[in-house]
Amino acid sequence: MKQLLVYLFCSVFSFLCITNILAEEKWEVAASPPISENTQVCILCHRNYTPGIIEDWLKSRHSKISPEMALKMPPIERRISSEIIPDTLKSTVVGCYECHGLNASNHKDNFEHFGFRINVIVSPNDCKTCHPVEVDQYSASKKAHAVENLQQNPLYHTFGEAITGIKEIKDGKLISLNSSEHTKAETCYACHGTVVTVKGMKKIFSKMGDIDVPDLANWPNQGVGRINPDGSKGACTSCHPRHNFSIEVARKPYTCAQCHLEPDVPAFEVYKESKHGNIFLSKQHEWNWNNVPWRVGKDFQAPTCATCHNSLIATSDDKVIVSRTHDFGARLWVRLFGLIYSHPQPKVGATHIIKNKDGLPFPVTYDGESASEYLIDKNEQIQRQTEMKKICQGCHNTDWVNLHFVKLDSTIAETDTMCLSATRLLQKAWNEGLADPSNPFDETIEHLWIKQWFFYANSVRYASAMGGPDFATFKNGWWELTTNLHKMFELTQIKK
Amino acid sequence: MKQLLVYLFCSVFSFLCITNILAEEKWEVAASPPISENTQVCILCHRNYTPGIIEDWLKSRHSKISPEMALKMPPIERRISSEIIPDTLKSTVVGCYECHGLNASNHKDNFEHFGFRINVIVSPNDCKTCHPVEVDQYSASKKAHAVENLQQNPLYHTFGEAITGIKEIKDGKLISLNSSEHTKAETCYACHGTVVTVKGMKKIFSKMGDIDVPDLANWPNQGVGRINPDGSKGACTSCHPRHNFSIEVARKPYTCAQCHLEPDVPAFEVYKESKHGNIFLSKQHEWNWNNVPWRVGKDFQAPTCATCHNSLIATSDDKVIVSRTHDFGARLWVRLFGLIYSHPQPKVGATHIIKNKDGLPFPVTYDGESASEYLIDKNEQIQRQTEMKKICQGCHNTDWVNLHFVKLDSTIAETDTMCLSATRLLQKAWNEGLADPSNPFDETIEHLWIKQWFFYANSVRYASAMGGPDFATFKNGWWELTTNLHKMFELTQIKK
Amino acid sequence: MKQLLVYLFCSVFSFLCITNILAEEKWEVAASPPISENTQVCILCHRNYTPGIIEDWLKSRHSKISPEMALKMPPIERRISSEIIPDTLKSTVVGCYECHGLNASNHKDNFEHFGFRINVIVSPNDCKTCHPVEVDQYSASKKAHAVENLQQNPLYHTFGEAITGIKEIKDGKLISLNSSEHTKAETCYACHGTVVTVKGMKKIFSKMGDIDVPDLANWPNQGVGRINPDGSKGACTSCHPRHNFSIEVARKPYTCAQCHLEPDVPAFEVYKESKHGNIFLSKQHEWNWNNVPWRVGKDFQAPTCATCHNSLIATSDDKVIVSRTHDFGARLWVRLFGLIYSHPQPKVGATHIIKNKDGLPFPVTYDGESASEYLIDKNEQIQRQTEMKKICQGCHNTDWVNLHFVKLDSTIAETDTMCLSATRLLQKAWNEGLADPSNPFDETIEHLWIKQWFFYANSVRYASAMGGPDFATFKNGWWELTTNLHKMFELTQIKK
Repeated sequence: MKQLLVYLFCSVFSFLCITNILAEEKWEVAASPPISENTQVCILCHRNYTPGIIEDWLKSRHSKISPEMALKMPPIERRISSEIIPDTLKSTVVGCYECHGLNASNHKDNFEHFGFRINVIVSPNDCKTCHPVEVDQYSASKKAHAVENLQQNPLYHTFGEAITGIKEIKDGKLISLNSSEHTKAETCYACHGTVVTVKGMKKIFSKMGDIDVPDLANWPNQGVGRINPDGSKGACTSCHPRHNFSIEVARKPYTCAQCHLEPDVPAFEVYKESKHGNIFLSKQHEWNWNNVPWRVGKDFQAPTCATCHNSLIATSDDKVIVSRTHDFGARLWVRLFGLIYSHPQPKVGATHIIKNKDGLPFPVTYDGESASEYLIDKNEQIQRQTEMKKICQGCHNTDWVNLHFVKLDSTIAETDTMCLSATRLLQKAWNEGLADPSNPFDETIEHLWIKQWFFYANSVRYASAMGGPDFATFKNGWWELTTNLHKMFELTQIKK
Repeated sequence: MKQLLVYLFCSVFSFLCITNILAEEKWEVAASPPISENTQVCILCHRNYTPGIIEDWLKSRHSKISPEMALKMPPIERRISSEIIPDTLKSTVVGCYECHGLNASNHKDNFEHFGFRINVIVSPNDCKTCHPVEVDQYSASKKAHAVENLQQNPLYHTFGEAITGIKEIKDGKLISLNSSEHTKAETCYACHGTVVTVKGMKKIFSKMGDIDVPDLANWPNQGVGRINPDGSKGACTSCHPRHNFSIEVARKPYTCAQCHLEPDVPAFEVYKESKHGNIFLSKQHEWNWNNVPWRVGKDFQAPTCATCHNSLIATSDDKVIVSRTHDFGARLWVRLFGLIYSHPQPKVGATHIIKNKDGLPFPVTYDGESASEYLIDKNEQIQRQTEMKKICQGCHNTDWVNLHFVKLDSTIAETDTMCLSATRLLQKAWNEGLADPSNPFDETIEHLWIKQWFFYANSVRYASAMGGPDFATFKNGWWELTTNLHKMFELTQIKK
Repeated sequence: MKQLLVYLFCSVFSFLCITNILAEEKWEVAASPPISENTQVCILCHRNYTPGIIEDWLKSRHSKISPEMALKMPPIERRISSEIIPDTLKSTVVGCYECHGLNASNHKDNFEHFGFRINVIVSPNDCKTCHPVEVDQYSASKKAHAVENLQQNPLYHTFGEAITGIKEIKDGKLISLNSSEHTKAETCYACHGTVVTVKGMKKIFSKMGDIDVPDLANWPNQGVGRINPDGSKGACTSCHPRHNFSIEVARKPYTCAQCHLEPDVPAFEVYKESKHGNIFLSKQHEWNWNNVPWRVGKDFQAPTCATCHNSLIATSDDKVIVSRTHDFGARLWVRLFGLIYSHPQPKVGATHIIKNKDGLPFPVTYDGESASEYLIDKNEQIQRQTEMKKICQGCHNTDWVNLHFVKLDSTIAETDTMCLSATRLLQKAWNEGLADPSNPFDETIEHLWIKQWFFYANSVRYASAMGGPDFATFKNGWWELTTNLHKMFELTQIKK
């Protein structure tokens, strides 16, 4: 009898513990699959040398489940998109060597490390082994081309240099030198990504003594358009940080908020002051951040960035509302981000191919004419807006949603007008010799012009799209659109 | 014996689960009351058409308790303030039809919808059925009059137009057109509220096919002073968002932070950098956000906006410290928000009736004289400050609290002086023809003047009231008050 | 049998409850030690008069454990650093009287209060009774000298007055009066601390009737360099707020974010947009905030301010990575905070003793030469950087960490150049009589110069150190460094 009671006690207790641990994610209650022998060797050393990442990984789904187990989930609940996993990877958890040992021949950063050949950088092409749909979608997106779009577009390149070039006073003149690679890496390229190259091998002194490692240039970096030593584009760790690779993190707006920040892209700040942000900030602790699919109302009570832009969203009885996409522009019809005015989304991720009627690599001319052949057409715009509206309609009625987007259209037109007025003033300054058009980014009236379309018009449009009253009004909104235009106007008057 | 053990196991387990679920809120452990037949029909369709709001409501208190049950709570713990609930609503949960079906004859937005007559907008007058005290308090407040105070005060109207009017360059001149209704709706009126009117009926194409719905103007909107199709003022959903209607959300500062943001009203940013904000941000996960009354120290360890401005606050043994109010100015004696200087709180919510000695609809003249007859007197000020101090004294000793408010008084006087200096410079510019006084809001020196009182003086005063060092100093504080005044001074010198 | 079952039920239940309560902190499961008789009397009244702080304290570790129990912990897990605790304090919990009754003879704020002699302010010297190592480290730090460094450095004093002095327009001139004590207390001294003095006794009317209390000047205040009525420096409550005195709060970045904010010290904003901030904001709810030592990867998955700057960090098997320090500069080799350029950390906390080659109390001359004799040397710099790198290497490999700091060094040099260019322009203005060098902080071109080194260069350096792309680029970063320099340049041209 006593044994029975002890047994009962233990059962109750351990059952409660297990249900608690597993509450957030619905995977099969089973013994964890084994850790591969290779990975065990990695861990043996690295638990001493970089203990933080071992512990981080131990909390990840990768450390608890094998691809084989993942494939037993119903398709709608799956986090992997390949049906064919290499035999060598199938039945162990996804550990150090399973990722860092992949596709060695493609990797210029592959090297011999205590008896193993490993890659420093795990690239999207490696992740593709289990997640091919996500990688293919991502690779075609603007994000994947983020650094090449900066480097290969002469105007954007000039803009970047104008801002981050070192300035010195020489002979009473203000001169601008080239930007350093270091500064580019931590300004524009911190978000856009660097081109990581391998210069050879080098010896470094580590806690393990002298070791030979690849000599990487433009590293470390986790920008979204990073070009990796295997030629692939992007860094999955931009949004799924190492070594936890969590869906939860990617779904939280703090992740997008690494880059999408005011003054140029105030997506996160606008979100925070929106009704959706209010609900997220107040109730997020009760939400199910790891469920796949992500069920509207049940798992979350207000959308985050991921909800509208990429997640697989379903009803509580698992009817799909929208499919998952890792092309973050796929549900967007208009590009609110003015260059220099808003315009239909580009057809392809490599936007540096765009040329407008003036021959400039901007998607719109100074006069406001779109470079239509490079931009999606009306039909595609309608189709994408319809997709987005499905998400809104998860909670809002049809009329509510329609009226919201009518308002957005009006705001797009008005803010474009406010930018056109700024361009007119700049052109006047150029025409009258008050400023020099050869570089449109390096004089005070040009700085004001940049602020008009790059900071203030964007702020108002984002605020309109998400319902952020402060960013529409006083904080980088209409207040600035108006007072900035007055300043530009005065510059064109005073100097005459 | 075995059965007994199984029974015991189940009891332990389910008891633990239930106590866990009910831990946050103390309502009677009982079966949920029924959902009305009307609401069941709503849910039948809307769980398919707008599943998010059904799930959201299912998590609400409204979905789990009937007014009858709510009335059984001890008065101090009640969330409803009416003792007389209509018989038809008493014994079911508060569902779709219970709210959207109320007071049909008052609602110009009432329409026939699949056999039911419902209102699009549930208004404060509808919520009043169970929450009359809250609605009456709110309806008298400045918040409830927020949009009419903007529209009916000619100066505020001019200010709004100056900012949000579209500007064009015509014949070398900068001209300002009228603001569009869309832009007003998402700038000033996003917080202040719109006047929602019904233009008739219209046919829309929805997921259910073509349906007839009311054709609403200035909708959607959730501003605090919204004027509803039934004539009532306000939107309870400004702070208790649909369809969860949570006390928790309203008590969290993220809710107030939809509107009370820098640069003009930096309440939330100042709070975040204050000691109170520090404690809130660090410990909020352990607090009881749903308890009524809200017990100082026990349920929360530092005040949020709601604590000081409206919640029912009690000791841990339920002695009332301050009563609940939904007039958010009721505990305020001074209006830190300068117009154009700080001043005693207005007597009534409809501030557009105020006229100062200069005949302008500002509560203070340019020279700093208050329009006393429209503002509360010294006695009322003392009474309100005493009420506020009771909350401070929940944690701080009398001397600490007194000294805090002495400091605030000093700061109010100093920042008013810094604004008066700005006005003196503006008057000089007006007198000397450097600027045109006919519209005081549309020239560069006037923009600087606005920043002085509307952005910087407010920031310092809020920072003084709540203890935010950065907003008092470099971030929109004394640094800006000073450097901005220098800029104004130079404008009055250069142009002479 | 039945009794056995009941007993079993109770055991299971209470064990689960206790483990739950104790889950976060590993102290011995034992009955709480007694509350001292003195403290019981305090509580008897104050649970009515200031109930919030009693409840707050009841949630603290101080209310649940005696110093005697604390000493039974293994040394690495201890939160107290004294081995010798006075007998009178050993065996009771740390209550009101145990702290407010200490070292009465040192305290000018000691007074008779209902039969007890107590101090208003519990000072670091009082906390030292149990926490001597922490207090000694802190007392030598820059933080502890924060207010005297402002007051005794004539340049900083002039800077403060220039900003916070009240400005009036007199006879067409802009004149600056002295800053008031109130304004200083809530601007500079809110973070830096006030000098709290005792002017005598005074009678105040409290809820207990008229009582006599010390008449304190410059109170309330919780700045880091506060000088207390017992002569000690600092306020432990800056980071461990009353009366919870929590490690959790101090470890969260919200605590540092009371002061370390943009525009001058944007540490928190940069952190939030960094990868570390992203992970913290997304996963903090799962971390163990109270464990000592703090185990990398296991207790936290990304560093907070405390991780890098002061906590005791260990591996999951309790190998120490870095020791705890309460001198928050102890792991820093370079002072990113430019005055007016970056420079090696000062040797001592009392930086007002520094004089550079120009005879000015800045650690660097206008031309960029460091006042080396007051600053740590290369060896000390290397040693401190090595210490910091150990923390980085908890997760990152050696090469990653080295490259990160190479980039930081480059940014320090570039931003110093951008500041030197600004100084050159200011010197030109001074030389040509366009500005008056007698006070370098009170003219428009001087304000721009201040922004260059105090706001923008600092922002870029912090962004480089922590990986914050927005603050390196558009938000107070290179964009502002560049456009601000253009404005300064134009001021030196126009006026000629």
